[in-house]
Amino acid sequence: MNFTRRRAIGLLAGGLLAARALPVRAQPDPLPSWNDGAPKKAILDFVARTTVEGAPDFVPPPERIAVFDNDGTLWTEQPIYFQFAFAIDRVKALAGQHPDWKEKEPFRSILAGDMAGFLATGEKGVVEVLAATHAGMTTDEFRKTVEEWIATARHPRFDRLYVDLVYQPMLELMAFLRANRFKTFIVSGGGIDFMRPWTGKVYGIPPEQVVGSAGVVKFELRDGKPVLIKEGKVEFIDDGPGKPVGIDRFIGRRPVFAFGNSDGDQQMLEYTAGGDRLRFMGLVHHTDAEREYAYDRQSPVGRLDKALDEARQRKWTVVDMKADWNTIYPFQRK
Amino acid sequence: MNFTRRRAIGLLAGGLLAARALPVRAQPDPLPSWNDGAPKKAILDFVARTTVEGAPDFVPPPERIAVFDNDGTLWTEQPIYFQFAFAIDRVKALAGQHPDWKEKEPFRSILAGDMAGFLATGEKGVVEVLAATHAGMTTDEFRKTVEEWIATARHPRFDRLYVDLVYQPMLELMAFLRANRFKTFIVSGGGIDFMRPWTGKVYGIPPEQVVGSAGVVKFELRDGKPVLIKEGKVEFIDDGPGKPVGIDRFIGRRPVFAFGNSDGDQQMLEYTAGGDRLRFMGLVHHTDAEREYAYDRQSPVGRLDKALDEARQRKWTVVDMKADWNTIYPFQRK
Repeated sequence: MNFTRRRAIGLLAGGLLAARALPVRAQPDPLPSWNDGAPKKAILDFVARTTVEGAPDFVPPPERIAVFDNDGTLWTEQPIYFQFAFAIDRVKALAGQHPDWKEKEPFRSILAGDMAGFLATGEKGVVEVLAATHAGMTTDEFRKTVEEWIATARHPRFDRLYVDLVYQPMLELMAFLRANRFKTFIVSGGGIDFMRPWTGKVYGIPPEQVVGSAGVVKFELRDGKPVLIKEGKVEFIDDGPGKPVGIDRFIGRRPVFAFGNSDGDQQMLEYTAGGDRLRFMGLVHHTDAEREYAYDRQSPVGRLDKALDEARQRKWTVVDMKADWNTIYPFQRK
Repeated sequence: MNFTRRRAIGLLAGGLLAARALPVRAQPDPLPSWNDGAPKKAILDFVARTTVEGAPDFVPPPERIAVFDNDGTLWTEQPIYFQFAFAIDRVKALAGQHPDWKEKEPFRSILAGDMAGFLATGEKGVVEVLAATHAGMTTDEFRKTVEEWIATARHPRFDRLYVDLVYQPMLELMAFLRANRFKTFIVSGGGIDFMRPWTGKVYGIPPEQVVGSAGVVKFELRDGKPVLIKEGKVEFIDDGPGKPVGIDRFIGRRPVFAFGNSDGDQQMLEYTAGGDRLRFMGLVHHTDAEREYAYDRQSPVGRLDKALDEARQRKWTVVDMKADWNTIYPFQRK
C-alpha cells in the first residue's frame, strides 16, 4: 500500500469514527416528552443498570421482556373503552339486518343513543353486544371491519382518529426499550383480535406480541377453503389475575418491566415484582382533565384504587400525567 | 476531492464490492445435510422467490412466519412421544409419595414396567398420568423438573439425551430461514410447558415462539409471593384442527411456511395453503428404519395417512427421510 492510499484510508477511517462518535457526544434525549422527575429518572436508571454487560443487574437480552397494558396506558380509554365505541358503531351498521333490534335490549338503547339505558342492561347486555358484533364471522372478515373502523371513526371530544389518541411519552418509552433490546408486548383486557390489526403500525408491536381477551375460534373448511370462525363464546379474559396467566401462556417468561394504569393491572405488576432480577413496575395516573382526563378511585372505566395504594406502599413508579408528561398526543408535538 | 483520494476511494469501493461478491460466488451450502433432490430444491426456490424485494412473490419480513410441528418433525417421536417417557419417569420418581399407586391403574402398570397394561387404560389412563405428573405445582417448579429430566434422561435405543435426537437437516432449515428473516415458531401437540424450557438452546426458538397444548393455570399469592399453579384440567389441545386455532391465537398471522409429519398437522398445512401469498407446505415421511424409524399409516405414534394422501394430491413437499437426508442427528455429522 502506498503512502497516499494509506493516508486516504486514514482520513476516511477518521471521518467514519468521527461520524460514529458524534451521536454519543451529543446524544439526544430518548424521552423528550417526559419532564425531568422521578418517573423519567427511574426509567433511565433501570435501563442503564440492566443493559451493561458485567454489571450486577445486567439482564441478558432474551430476558428483557416488557409488558404494557393498552387502554389507559398506551392510549386514552375515556369516555368509554374504544372497543365499546367500535361495538356500538357495529350495532348501528348491522341494525338493518336485524329489524328486531329496534325493540330488543340492549340494542334498542344503543340505537336510540340512550347510553344510560344500555349500561343499565349490565354485563349481560355487554356480552350480548360483543357476541353480536365480534362473532359469527371469519377472523379475516372481522379484521377488515376493525381496519375500516380504525381508519375512519373519530373520538367525540378530540375529533381525531382513535389511533391518534396514543400517548407520545409511551411511544418514546417503547422505542427506547426496543433500542435497548427489550422485547415489547401488549397485555390487555381488550380483545386480541381488536388490537392486532393496528398495533404494528401504531406501536411497533407485531400481532404475535399482543396478548388480550379472546373468544372461541373454530377451524372450518368452507367450500374447501380453510377459515377460522369467531364464535360467540368467551375463551379467556386477560384482566386482573388473568394477566399473569396470559403472560405465562403467551410469553412463557416473567417480565422485568411492566406498565399499567388500573386495578386490572395489579396482578401483572405483582407477578413482575415477584421475579428475581431487577425489575420495573409503573402506573399511569390520569391527573390531567384539561389535556386528557382525570380519574382514579371512582371511575367505572379504568378504576385505579387498590393498585394505586399498593404502588405507593411498594414504591412502584407512579406517573402523574399532568406533571410528568409535557406532551400527551403525537399531534401536539412542537 | 483530489484525484489521488478519489482514486483511492475507487479502489477501496472496488475492494468492498469484490469482498461482498465473494461469498455469493463461494457461498457455502446452507443445507448440507439435505441431499440434492426435490425437497431441497423446493426449499431453496421458495426462499429465493420470497426474499427478493420487488420480485412478484416477495413476502415482507413481518409476514415471513414459519411454523414447525415438534414431535417427529424436529426430533424423534418413537418408540413413544418423549413427553410420555418424561411422564413415566415422573410417575416412578413420585411413587414414594403415593403408596396407593402400587395397586391403582394406570400407575400400577407403569411401576411394574407393563407398557401394554398402561396403554390398555386408554385415554383415561393418559389423562390421569398427565394430571399426576404435570399439575399440582407452580410453573417454576414444573420447569425445573423438565430441565433436570432433559439434561439426564436417555433414549432407550440410541442411549443419547433426548435433545440429542433432533434432526440436523431441520436445524439447518430453521437457521437458513432465520438468516432470511423468517420468524420460526413451534406449533406442537406437545405440552407448551414441557417444550419451552429447552427449545431456545436446542432449536434457537425462544419460549414466546412456542405454541402447544396447555393445562389451566391459576394465579395465586402464596405467602405473599405471586405464583402460577398448574391445575389438572386441560385448557387447549394444539393438535389437528386445534393447530390453526393455536396459530391464530398465539401468532395472529397466517404462516407462509409450515412443516409437519403426521395427520395431526393436516389442518395446519391446509390453513397455510389457504393463504394468498406464495407458500410452502412440507411433511417429513419417516422411511429410515436403520438410521431412525420407518412408519406411517399404521403407526399409533405419529400416524401419517390422510395428510400423506393430501400432500401427494396437492403436490406439497414430502421428505423421504432415507433418500433426502444424508445425516439424521447432529452427533452423526462428519
